[in-house]
This record gives sequence, structure tokens and C-alpha cells, in this order.
Amino acid sequence: MSSFIADNACFAPLFADEEIDAHFCSERQMALMLAFEMELTRALVDHGLVERSVGAAALAAMMDFSPDIVALGQGSLQDGLPVPAFVRSLKSHVEALAGAEAVAAVHVGTTSQDLVDTVLVLNLRAVSLSLSVRLARVIERLERLARRFGVRSIMARTRMQAALPILVSDRLDSWVMPLRSHLSGLPALRQRVEQLQFGGPVGTRNGLGGKGDAIAAQLAEAFNLGNPSKAWHSMREPIVAYGDFLSMLSASLGKMGMDICLMAQQGGDEIKLGGSGTSSAMPHKQNPVLAEMLVAFARFNGVQLSGLHHGMVHEQERSGMAWTLEWMILPLMAATAGKALSHAEALLSQVESMGNV
Amino acid sequence: MSSFIADNACFAPLFADEEIDAHFCSERQMALMLAFEMELTRALVDHGLVERSVGAAALAAMMDFSPDIVALGQGSLQDGLPVPAFVRSLKSHVEALAGAEAVAAVHVGTTSQDLVDTVLVLNLRAVSLSLSVRLARVIERLERLARRFGVRSIMARTRMQAALPILVSDRLDSWVMPLRSHLSGLPALRQRVEQLQFGGPVGTRNGLGGKGDAIAAQLAEAFNLGNPSKAWHSMREPIVAYGDFLSMLSASLGKMGMDICLMAQQGGDEIKLGGSGTSSAMPHKQNPVLAEMLVAFARFNGVQLSGLHHGMVHEQERSGMAWTLEWMILPLMAATAGKALSHAEALLSQVESMGNV
Amino acid sequence: MSSFIADNACFAPLFADEEIDAHFCSERQMALMLAFEMELTRALVDHGLVERSVGAAALAAMMDFSPDIVALGQGSLQDGLPVPAFVRSLKSHVEALAGAEAVAAVHVGTTSQDLVDTVLVLNLRAVSLSLSVRLARVIERLERLARRFGVRSIMARTRMQAALPILVSDRLDSWVMPLRSHLSGLPALRQRVEQLQFGGPVGTRNGLGGKGDAIAAQLAEAFNLGNPSKAWHSMREPIVAYGDFLSMLSASLGKMGMDICLMAQQGGDEIKLGGSGTSSAMPHKQNPVLAEMLVAFARFNGVQLSGLHHGMVHEQERSGMAWTLEWMILPLMAATAGKALSHAEALLSQVESMGNV
Amino acid sequence: MSSFIADNACFAPLFADEEIDAHFCSERQMALMLAFEMELTRALVDHGLVERSVGAAALAAMMDFSPDIVALGQGSLQDGLPVPAFVRSLKSHVEALAGAEAVAAVHVGTTSQDLVDTVLVLNLRAVSLSLSVRLARVIERLERLARRFGVRSIMARTRMQAALPILVSDRLDSWVMPLRSHLSGLPALRQRVEQLQFGGPVGTRNGLGGKGDAIAAQLAEAFNLGNPSKAWHSMREPIVAYGDFLSMLSASLGKMGMDICLMAQQGGDEIKLGGSGTSSAMPHKQNPVLAEMLVAFARFNGVQLSGLHHGMVHEQERSGMAWTLEWMILPLMAATAGKALSHAEALLSQVESMGNV
Repeated sequence: MSSFIADNACFAPLFADEEIDAHFCSERQMALMLAFEMELTRALVDHGLVERSVGAAALAAMMDFSPDIVALGQGSLQDGLPVPAFVRSLKSHVEALAGAEAVAAVHVGTTSQDLVDTVLVLNLRAVSLSLSVRLARVIERLERLARRFGVRSIMARTRMQAALPILVSDRLDSWVMPLRSHLSGLPALRQRVEQLQFGGPVGTRNGLGGKGDAIAAQLAEAFNLGNPSKAWHSMREPIVAYGDFLSMLSASLGKMGMDICLMAQQGGDEIKLGGSGTSSAMPHKQNPVLAEMLVAFARFNGVQLSGLHHGMVHEQERSGMAWTLEWMILPLMAATAGKALSHAEALLSQVESMGNV
Repeated sequence: MSSFIADNACFAPLFADEEIDAHFCSERQMALMLAFEMELTRALVDHGLVERSVGAAALAAMMDFSPDIVALGQGSLQDGLPVPAFVRSLKSHVEALAGAEAVAAVHVGTTSQDLVDTVLVLNLRAVSLSLSVRLARVIERLERLARRFGVRSIMARTRMQAALPILVSDRLDSWVMPLRSHLSGLPALRQRVEQLQFGGPVGTRNGLGGKGDAIAAQLAEAFNLGNPSKAWHSMREPIVAYGDFLSMLSASLGKMGMDICLMAQQGGDEIKLGGSGTSSAMPHKQNPVLAEMLVAFARFNGVQLSGLHHGMVHEQERSGMAWTLEWMILPLMAATAGKALSHAEALLSQVESMGNV
Repeated sequence: MSSFIADNACFAPLFADEEIDAHFCSERQMALMLAFEMELTRALVDHGLVERSVGAAALAAMMDFSPDIVALGQGSLQDGLPVPAFVRSLKSHVEALAGAEAVAAVHVGTTSQDLVDTVLVLNLRAVSLSLSVRLARVIERLERLARRFGVRSIMARTRMQAALPILVSDRLDSWVMPLRSHLSGLPALRQRVEQLQFGGPVGTRNGLGGKGDAIAAQLAEAFNLGNPSKAWHSMREPIVAYGDFLSMLSASLGKMGMDICLMAQQGGDEIKLGGSGTSSAMPHKQNPVLAEMLVAFARFNGVQLSGLHHGMVHEQERSGMAWTLEWMILPLMAATAGKALSHAEALLSQVESMGNV
Repeated sequence: MSSFIADNACFAPLFADEEIDAHFCSERQMALMLAFEMELTRALVDHGLVERSVGAAALAAMMDFSPDIVALGQGSLQDGLPVPAFVRSLKSHVEALAGAEAVAAVHVGTTSQDLVDTVLVLNLRAVSLSLSVRLARVIERLERLARRFGVRSIMARTRMQAALPILVSDRLDSWVMPLRSHLSGLPALRQRVEQLQFGGPVGTRNGLGGKGDAIAAQLAEAFNLGNPSKAWHSMREPIVAYGDFLSMLSASLGKMGMDICLMAQQGGDEIKLGGSGTSSAMPHKQNPVLAEMLVAFARFNGVQLSGLHHGMVHEQERSGMAWTLEWMILPLMAATAGKALSHAEALLSQVESMGNV
């Protein structure tokens, strides 16, 4: 599942978002899975489920653990995700360094999904931070344009036909207001999303001598995550709501991109863009490439979102099908929304003039 | 754009939702468009833009107005929506009953989209009320099942394989918790959606002698709607967020339906359903028809949602393309979500037993 | 699952396609289900599975059968489709008129899906005939425009920017060539789609004393349908291919609509349209409403198509979920494609001029 | 636009398809773009538009050309695709090695889209070859299973309920027949897709002294591609039809995967799989991971397809928006379909038994 686009270096700078991609990289994945296991061992000790000295030995061993990434990949092919291979390898490592007894301090009362989902929400936290910084910059660009050109006149167009003159600030408002709303809504969404996953094999927090909830509370605190009253293995609404946000954000930028494409058509003096794209055959052309990208990215994410909603139909306590579909789609959407913000900022910085003096 | 399903009486009871459909019917459409025009005329009078006697005459005439629905339909074919024909007809009527002067009290400072969008949010209010009543009933059914069967044991299944036993109440929790969250989130969503649309031809509330905002405030109060600081002609996020809600609600019910389909497979004693569907060829079969419908409806709405997100890419001040796409999709989604709730309630009422004693 | 749009008479003429809708109506559904049962009884007689006199009595009774449509609808709610109720009612009727013995000549070796799918392909045949007539008319309109304006010059636009002049016929070619390809490809697609469904309860044509294939052959001939070597209950590729065709057809018209919207922007002399839409607030505007509809319809069908492809994932021998999803979507797509063709023809008839003399 | 999945080495082997990905890599992209330019220069010489000696000098220089891939990537960011930067760089190189005169033999009468689309169809040819090899292997596996287990009995299930016994070969038929149909339909689809793109800046093959069609014919022959009568810059039906094929192929495998998931549920003896996935928490579990992947991949491609259909709505002679959307989606779909075939083959090789002896 590669992409012509993001993996083909001839095209990549137009599509790939290195910062967002890094939030989902394998190094981070492994580091956060290990962090989860170590915090869990600490909590097991603190709640008396593992003897302190045993836990300390296990933790000391874990600190040195560096999994074989190739083996994890092969583990995914076998098990559908890297956690079983990761845990097997971690336990071997702990046993080798700290003895067989210490293995009993590792991966107790938890399950693969606890790790993968907790890593996911930590990744989405990083995505949210990246997006909010960029969103603020795009908003600032738009506010700057409003200060420079807002009082000028521009022809309003409804149904793609000239209607009546409005102010440039009216059009800019229709771009910036949805972005402000996305930014101001993000904290509440983040709170909904940034929830620890901890349920154990079948989501019940059993098998921890009645200490499941207390251990969850400690884990949540360690990662600065919310602690839901119950594992959300098969309840994906917050994740899907995050996808709704990514698609809406992309669509709001797509609307701006479409407007700029239309404004940039020759014959109008509605917008002047510096640094636009060139043609291999027609040197006189100035193509509003970044504006086009915003529309393409909006449609891309509008399409993807459908898959996330299908991904809510989990079978029983955990669906390999539905959950996998979520993995395939959500990072694509995050990177597409992120790149759209970067393109939007660059595009707005190209605006040399809007409207009639 | 008919549906085999909802318009074909052989199938309709399985698909059509008469209550939700009625919220979008033409009688209501016409009545609410007229109500909008009358409240606007009242506000024009109250803010001194129309002489009180002229306004009163116009209002008296409007009270008797009953548009020719065939002409409105033909107007839509011509103009893309029924409002221009509606307004022409309304003005003729007012002129005939109250004289040419009174016509100046009608449809001043407003535009087609103000009417259509305001009617839409009033319709969505009605939808929200229908859905929240049904949602509460489904939740109550699930709570009743938890009281009856919650302490029984059932085999948890992950990746469609038997895992470990859980309580029936654990599985029921995974069904009811998302529904509770949809219900508790609805008031905030409603507040976001139930906003007056009032902007005039190009969304600026101009052409009303500086009284645009005041008139908007009065209209909003008359309809018990929020009054946004600006018209949202091309800013569709709240509408699209409503679609997100409808799709998520359907998906949550789809997850429950999928579980029930899987539980109802022969050989297991996980669920007993009374009154299931029969086969034309195999009298021994008991098909969990309503559970299947919940999955089909979840996928249907998961598909539709993509179109609503595309509909955010408005061109300039109003897009005939994007807006029309929204019209084609949102009522379908509302009725599908509504019918899913009705089916869910009926399905849960068929449950005679869950889990092992 | 109603539509604001097609069921709300204020909007219907812009969206509803009465001719296509009629192909999916309940009267036709019932008539074709009965025709299927009668042809099956004839075939049972002809292949010696039913005594000729008994078959004749059953057929005489069936000729008078007129099912209670309300009961069929309620049957759908119970059984997921109207066939079990239809068959029960038909058998009662035959018993009442022709005696208990004759009942054994009815609905032998077949199943609900045989009826519903055979009716579906007969409906799609009718759709294909409607669409091909309209497609030919749209192509003819485009050819007429090419004869009238083809040699004129028009500015080619790439990436929405003026590029170099081309001939009007060049642009018209980009509209008409895909339509010609859709029309010329339709016969092969029809052959793929117009296949009898006949498999019995589990798709094996068993239970007919080894005469299953021979009976299928006779049924296929009676309905002038292809006779596949095996029932296609869970193999939906041809149906989905029909959806691909409907979406592509809509998209080709959408591309034309988008071009016309862009050409109709003021300031250009690229196209002149008579009879365009009016605004309730701005009498100077001429909105290219039908061109906008073509884009909206293309997006609508592009969205729906996804659902049909999901509908291929049948579980085992028959999926109530996947099959139902197909029912909900395919007729919507057919009517949308049909209406797009009608709008395209009307739109092209409004063209008064293209290009520069 | 990365993917957690294919770019994260912890997961990649489950998702990434190295062979398919290689068909879309940058090295191949650059090599094929250069091949296109060289064949074009040859054709210009052969048709007398460039003097033979000048052409020879240019070709000699081009043979040594090795573009700076970083510059091409930056060119994409600027121009929306790498071709303008590629051509600028190629021309500089030719000028440096063969003199200014030779530059006139390079990139004459063509445009960026000619290169990118011709490379695309050459890539799709490679994809088709990969897929047809794998498809044949999957079919062969299924035929082998039919020979081994076909005469055994298995319970048919309709609407997920036990119906009547069928043969294992009946179920296998429902898996293999659609795959055979995909394989047998591929040559005709390939013929439709594997068409030279050659139109020049605005698609008219002008600017070549009337030799445009002759040059196109020579180019088509050089690449063993079809030579359409006209450039298909904005006519994307064959490309979209290829997407339909990819999605259908994935869905057919998804149906098989869903069946195997259902068959693998404990308590049944319907299928025995060796080498299934393990759980990090429950060592007794054998998860049918690859079968789940087939369903997830089917849904992924069913979702993506919608975007390709949206991509048909090109504006005028070339749409940066619609075309870009196609680039983002089609390679994802190809790799997903390819990986699905690989997983299917591996999954079928795990089958140790089907049905009851």
C-alpha cells in the first residue's frame, strides 16, 4: 500500500508530510509500546501485584530493550499486529537479563489492543499539536490579508455567476471562520480522544486481582491521558470523530482552494498570486497549483472518511477487519490534513493582492 | 431519484420512516417558507423599514396564501430551488389582495438560501426530537436486558474467535455506552445546527438600512433559533457535523446488529430471538432480519457521509452543486438513522434470552 | 429513507425521474414475481415434475392472483423481503381456487432470491433501454452543436487557466466521446447483467430431480435472459459493474456540466444559454442550474458506488446485509443517472452559441 | 500522506506490496519519462521535424541524462508535477552536451500530461502482469482445494443461518468463479487502458506541422501501446474502469475472507487453518488474520473507488484537482489489490481441511 505520490521522490514534496508521518513511525511505535509495558510493570508493583524487587529487575532489563524491527514486521504478518512478537521478544529479553521470575512482571492483565490503541492516541496527540500550530498560522495569514485588503471590493459570485459586490473581508470571513471553529473545537475533541486504552484480553480489566481500575488510573496519569471507566476496544466513536475533524478541516481548506482557483482565472483581477506553477509547454501560464491541491486533498479526505465510519462496525469484543481498516485510513487522513495546512499557509503567502482598489 | 425500497410498497415498511420523512415533506416546506416570509415582514415593520399599515396589509394577505405546489416544482426545475417561484407567486398574491404597495413589504433583504436553510434547520430540529425519543427507548431496552441477563456469562470473541468468558452486561455495555454518548452529545450539536440563516443575496445582511443584524435577531427569536454573527451560506460545518452524528449513530447500531447476527448463528446459545424472519424455501430457518438491517443501514450512512463532506467545497458565496448534493443526501441519512433506531427497538424487544444461565 | 428532494413536490421535478422510478415500482415488482412463479410452474409441468392437469389448474388460479400489497410490505418487515409473504398468499389463493393438490405446483425448487434478483435484472433491462434512448439523444444534441459551432475558436483552459485556442469541436469531442463509449459498451454490459437467477434455497438447483438446469434454461428463454451455469446469489460482479456504468455515465455528464458552469461565468463569451435559472433576489442573474445539477448528480453517484462495492462482500450463500445495501443504492443510482441524461439534453437544447465567431 | 501501515516497519509486511510499489517508484518514473522524450525525438527526426544530425546529437546527450531527483521533487511542489523541472533540466543537459540547436529536438509538441499519463499506463501494464500471475495462482489454489475437499459436505448458510448442506465445491465455486471472470476480463481491460497519451499542451496534437497523428502512431508502436484517435487528457474512463477492476477484485477476495472468518469460528469443523495468528494475551487462540485482512482490504478499496469516480469530473482541458486525486488513489488501490492476492494465496495454503468427511 504505497503511494506513487508520497513514496515517489519525484512527487513527494507535494504530498508527503514529514512531520505528521514521523508521528506514526516505527521508532516511535516501538518506544511507546515499551513505555506502556514499563509503566504497566511499575503499576503492577505499586499495586502489589508484583514484588518490588522483581519489578525493579524487570524494569532494569526493559530499559535496555531494543526489539528487532524485522521480527516485529514478520510478527504482524503472522498475528495481524506487532504486539505478540514484541511481547515474546521483550519477555525473552527480560528473562535473559533478569531471570525467569521477572517475566511474570511483564504484560500482565493487558492485551495487544491496549498497546496499539494507547500508542494511537498518543500519536493523535502529536498530530493535534502539529495541526493546531499550523492552523493558527493559516488563520493569522488570513487575518493579515484581511488587514491589507479587507476593505477592497470584490464581486460576490453565487452559483458561479457574478452577483453583487462585497468586501474582500466578507470572502475572507467565509474562509477563516470555519478554521477558527476547527481550532477552538480541538481541545474538547482532544479530551475525547486522548483516553488510555486498558482492558486486557476481553476488555474487562479482570485478572488483576480487582486492581484493574486502579492500575488503569496510574497508567492514565503516567501518560497524561484520560482514564475511561471502561476499555473502548470496540467503541471507536472518538477516533472516528477525529477523522470527521480531519475531513472537515481539509474541506474548509478545499473551499478556500476552490475559491482561489476560480479567482485566479484570467480576465479577473480578483487575486494576484506570486510564485505559481509553470507549464512544461506554455511559459505564459501561472497555475495556482497549491490551490488545486487543497481541493484534491479535501476530496481525498472526504472519500477516506467513509472508511473510518465503516470501521465502527466491530464484531463482538474486537474486530480484526474493522480495526485494521482504521489503521489503513486514519494516518493517511492526518497527513493529508497536515499537508493541506502547509500548502494553505504557503498559498496565502503567495497572495500579492485581492480585490479592486 | 426514487428508491426501489422506500417507494416500492412491497418493501417500504422495512425501509421507509414515515415520521422522519414527514419532517421533510412539501407541506411543511411551504408552511415554513411562508412563516419565514411573514416573520421577516413583521421584523421589517418593527424596524421601520416598512410602514406598519403596509406591513399589516401584506401580512393579512400572506395569511391566506396557498401556493400552487405544481408551479413550485416547475420553478425548481427552472431555478434550482422553489423559492423564486414561491416569492413570485407570493408577491402576486399580496398585490392582488393588498395592492402593489404591499409587495414592497415582501422578501426584502433576503434570498432563496435564507429560506431553504432556515427550513432545513427547523426540519433537523424535528429530526433531533424524533431521534432522541427513539434513542432513549433503545437505551432503556438495553438497560432492561442488562437487568434481566446482565449477570449471565457469555463467551467474549475477539477477531471472531472465542476468547474468554465475560458477563452479558459487558457486551451490553459496548452497545449502550456509545448510544448514551450520542444522546448526551445531541443538545450541543443541536445548538450548533439550529441557527437562523439570514444573509440576503450575498450573505452580508446589507440592503436593510443597517438594520440587518437587528432583523436577524428578531427572526432568530421568532423561530427559537440561534442567531449567528454572519450568514453561513457557504459554511456548512454544522450541517456536516449533523451528518457525522447520523452516520455514527447508525454505525453504533450497526455494531450491535452485527453482534446479534453473529450471536444468532445456530449452535450457540448466546441469544434467543422471537419473531424472526422466515424463508420462502426453508421453514426451519429463523433469520435475524432486523439485525441485518442495522448493518446495512450503518454501511449506507457510512457511504452517504462522504457526499456531505464533499458538499463542504462550496464555490464562492453559494454553490449550486455542493448545496444540492447536501439536499440529496442529508434527508436520506436522517431517515436511515431514524429507521435504524426503530428497528433496533423492535429487535431488542424480540430478545428472549442472552447468555448462559 | 425518503428524500427531501424526490418526494418533496416543491423540489421533485428537479430530481425525480418518473420513467426510471416506474421500472422499480411495486406493481411491476408484483407482476414480475407472479410471472416468475407462473413460468416456473409451466417449466415444472414441461419437465414432468408436476402433472399437467395439476399445473394447468394452478396456473389458471395464479392468473387471477392479486396480492395484498400491504401484506407484502408487512412481510418485508418480518422476513427482510416480500417473497415469503407473497408465496404464502399465492399458495393460499391457489389452494382456494384449485385445491390443495395444486399448491405443490407452486414455488418448487426456488427461493426468494431467485425471484428478487430476476426481477432486478428485468428492471435493469428496462433501465438500460431508457438510458440508451436518452444517451443517443444527448449524443445527437452534441453532434448538432458540433455542426453548428464546431469550427469556431475557444480558449482551451488547463488547470483552470487560459492555455491556447482550440476549436469548439475539440471541447465537444471531450464531452461526446465518453458518452459514445458508454453507449457502445452497453450491449456487452447488458448481456452480462441480464442473467436469470435460479438456484433454489442454497443456490445449487437441487431438489428438482436433476432437472434444475433444464428448468433454468426454460425460464431463461421465457424471460429472454441469459442462463448462467450456476446461480449467482452471492456473486454480484455484474450488478456492481452496472453501478460502475451508472456512475461513470453520471461523471461524464458531470464533467460536461462543470465545463458549462465555468464557461457560463460572466465576462466570457464561451457559451450562451437561454432559459437559465433565476434568483429570488437578483433579477440580473442567469444561473446555469441544469449544468450544476450534472455536477451534483455525478458526485452523488460517485459516492453511492462505494456502497455497491461494499455490497459484494456477501457472507456465505446469501447475505441479508450486503444484498439489502445493494437494493438501497442501485435504484437511486439508476434514477440519478437517468435524470442526469434528461437534464443534459435539456441543457444542451438551451445552448444558443459556443465560442467566438 | 504516509501510512502508519505501509511505512511503519512494525506493520509493513502485513500491508506493503513491494512488487507493486516498485512499479510506481521514482527510478522507473524518471526512466520512463526519459524514454518518452527520446522516442519523441526519434519520431520528430523520422517525420522530418528535426534534422537527423541534430536529433542524433540530442539523443546521444539524452542517453547520459540522469536528473536530480531532489530538484524534480521541488519542481512538483512548484508546478504540481515533476515534468516542467524534468524538461528544464533535460534541456540544459542537452544544451551542455550537444549545443543550443539540439534543444529544439526536445519536448516538441508535447506536454507534461503526455508524459505522466503514458508512464501511468506503462505502470498499470506492469501492475496487470503482477496481478494476473497472482490471480492465476489463487485460482489454482482454489482448484486444488476443490480437488481435495470438493465432494465433502458443508452447511450452506444464508443470512448467517444454517440452511441446507451443500458440497464444499459449491462454496469454492462462489469464490473462484468471480476470480476467473476477473482474470478473463483483464486482457480487454488492458487494451482499453494501455493507450498512449499524446496530445500536446491542449490535447490537439497541433504544432507538429500536421504530423501529430503520425508521430503519435510511432510513439505508440515504440511503447507497444494503443494509439487513440485523440488525446484522452480529460477522458479518464479507462483509468477509472481499472479502478473498478481493482475494487471488484479486492471485494471478491473480501467475500472469500469473510466466509473463512465465519467458517473459522470455534465450534464448527468447516475449515481448519494451520499457521494462524496468535494473541499476546490468549495463547489458545488461532486468529484467521489473513482472512480478516482480505475483508479490510476489500472495504479499503471499496472506499477509495469513490475518489476515482470523483476524479472523472475534470475541468475543461485538464484539471489539476481531479487528476491529482487520481494519483493519490490509484496506486494505493493497486497495491492493496496486489497484497490481497498475496494474502489470499498464503491463506489458502494454510487450509488443512474443509467440510465434513
